[in-house]
Amino acid sequence: MAAWKDNIRRVVPYVPGEQPKEPDIIKLNTNENPYGPTPRIKGISDDPDMLRLYPDPSISLLVDELARYHGVDSSQIFVGVGSDDVLAMSFMTFFNSDKPILFPDVTYSFYDVWADLFRIPYERPLLDDSFRLVKEDYYKDNGGIVFPNPNAPTGIYEPIETIEDIVKNNQDSIVIIDEAYIDFGGESALPLINKYDNLVIVRTFSKSRSMAGLRIGYAISNPELIKALNDVKYSYNSYTMNRPSIIMGAESVKDEEYFRNTINMVIKTREEFVEAVGALGFSCLPSATNFVFAKHEFIPAKDIFLAAKEAKIYVRYFDSPRINNYLRISIGTDEEMTTFVNFLKEFVSSYNKDSLN
Amino acid sequence: MAAWKDNIRRVVPYVPGEQPKEPDIIKLNTNENPYGPTPRIKGISDDPDMLRLYPDPSISLLVDELARYHGVDSSQIFVGVGSDDVLAMSFMTFFNSDKPILFPDVTYSFYDVWADLFRIPYERPLLDDSFRLVKEDYYKDNGGIVFPNPNAPTGIYEPIETIEDIVKNNQDSIVIIDEAYIDFGGESALPLINKYDNLVIVRTFSKSRSMAGLRIGYAISNPELIKALNDVKYSYNSYTMNRPSIIMGAESVKDEEYFRNTINMVIKTREEFVEAVGALGFSCLPSATNFVFAKHEFIPAKDIFLAAKEAKIYVRYFDSPRINNYLRISIGTDEEMTTFVNFLKEFVSSYNKDSLN
Repeated sequence: MAAWKDNIRRVVPYVPGEQPKEPDIIKLNTNENPYGPTPRIKGISDDPDMLRLYPDPSISLLVDELARYHGVDSSQIFVGVGSDDVLAMSFMTFFNSDKPILFPDVTYSFYDVWADLFRIPYERPLLDDSFRLVKEDYYKDNGGIVFPNPNAPTGIYEPIETIEDIVKNNQDSIVIIDEAYIDFGGESALPLINKYDNLVIVRTFSKSRSMAGLRIGYAISNPELIKALNDVKYSYNSYTMNRPSIIMGAESVKDEEYFRNTINMVIKTREEFVEAVGALGFSCLPSATNFVFAKHEFIPAKDIFLAAKEAKIYVRYFDSPRINNYLRISIGTDEEMTTFVNFLKEFVSSYNKDSLN
Repeated sequence: MAAWKDNIRRVVPYVPGEQPKEPDIIKLNTNENPYGPTPRIKGISDDPDMLRLYPDPSISLLVDELARYHGVDSSQIFVGVGSDDVLAMSFMTFFNSDKPILFPDVTYSFYDVWADLFRIPYERPLLDDSFRLVKEDYYKDNGGIVFPNPNAPTGIYEPIETIEDIVKNNQDSIVIIDEAYIDFGGESALPLINKYDNLVIVRTFSKSRSMAGLRIGYAISNPELIKALNDVKYSYNSYTMNRPSIIMGAESVKDEEYFRNTINMVIKTREEFVEAVGALGFSCLPSATNFVFAKHEFIPAKDIFLAAKEAKIYVRYFDSPRINNYLRISIGTDEEMTTFVNFLKEFVSSYNKDSLN
């Protein structure tokens, strides 16, 4: 065997939700927004000069717009290729202790993959039986803390007081709050960055801003931590964001009205969907996101998942302990959700008949 | 001091060439292509659905097109956010030995930055006095080898026989040949991937394909090494390439005629420029790229660099040992190069007068 084989970094990669290529499917499996992004982006990449020149490595157009939007200084914003890029870079930048980092047992399934990639030790305190965070589990020696709020795939939002307690009790660690879904219901921990120097907030354009296809995420923190992130980024790839993304991202931030409208539509559809499937024997965890985490009173989640896929409706199923009887269902348009509810109605009633026979 | 400060990865980042924001400058400092990319890309990102959905994480549209173009299997292509992303990921994936990796003393100034970021030991064999690679310097125990061919910032192309000797004499190491500039003159080492299992070729869309602003790079190798790269990529960020980039990249690969035409224009302008500045006392290293590395017989490079910048013409100056009397000049349009030659003509003649006074 060639010696170079010993020097390859061997990893078990993250498995993203399916991106099926066939047309005419209803896609409720990767928490995309059913509405397009701001129409202001039309035509932006038609200028050839736009593409032949390198992008601004400091991404200042978008950074400045985000700083204005959040009422912080531009030195407090770091932009990356989706929040996954921002999180990966944060792990590489901040989690270099020998002590384990902490994140919940049920959470975004990329955290342990990054920890393995960068050889960071980790521990996973259990959520309680209602999938709530037990904050005291994070009051121990650690090399860093990361969790989403609202959590994924449960959709549950933890109150800001819980977040503050965890940040306050860990002033020797960097605490990363992944707020990918915060625009759909929760209160952001953002104001806490003025009070604590160990807090990093991560956001994405993929959900509330309908730009999953563009890959934009960002971190908000104090200038010292943002500089550390930028130093690592400039040591990895100076030009991560392409030119159309920078301009389109900035246009999205400017169009507040469109942004609020689409969020409100998603929330309204979510509440109607929760009620409709409740009548069919489903219970949904309380969601502050653009998806619901639902289980049926007697039909195994996997059966529903497979039957829905057969009917060209894709939802997400995780074959993992504690959550393998749940489905994560992204909120689509009213029409898509009605089609899905009708499918479920029929599936549940025929399942009932089958079990009676 | 908070304990988390000890756990931050401290790095000295790469410094990219300036991307000045003022208009009306002649930009010959970052090896961009003066001609736009294929006009086939117009309007591609105007479809809102294009942006609201996640990209295909396997980037198959572009991967398949590149595989067809190069006559290899799709399992032999890895695509990333510019060749910097591909190289960074290759360092992380392949260079995990305790032995030093090897690259030349005068070369792309990102290699040592990546080595430092990932804590990879390295040694830098000296190029000879004509800035040529001394292949025997690479016949020793190492953890991997990387260099560009043609080299940057010298522009010098090493014959394929030299490359093969280095690959052949290092079958226990991964050898990465960074062919960012190969389309402007050299013969690719690509056929060697069928003969040696330790070779990775890296390419970019930023130079010959005029798409620096889009960020597309790729690696070509055997399926085993490409899988290792993909595993690391999927452990870092599943969705690195945004949707417009994937489609626009594929359109570029399809438009062979446009591609060949712009390359030929750049080469023609380069040869004319070399001749014109030769008459002004400049000598240029033999270039197989879209830039020339030039020094004047008696005027210090830094003086020319600063005066040109004053005249709104940006070229690249490296304040590094051995090359601090050279300028790296990207090839622009005929018109831009004529303006620059006229500037140089005047500058050299007034410099002569000044020194005579």
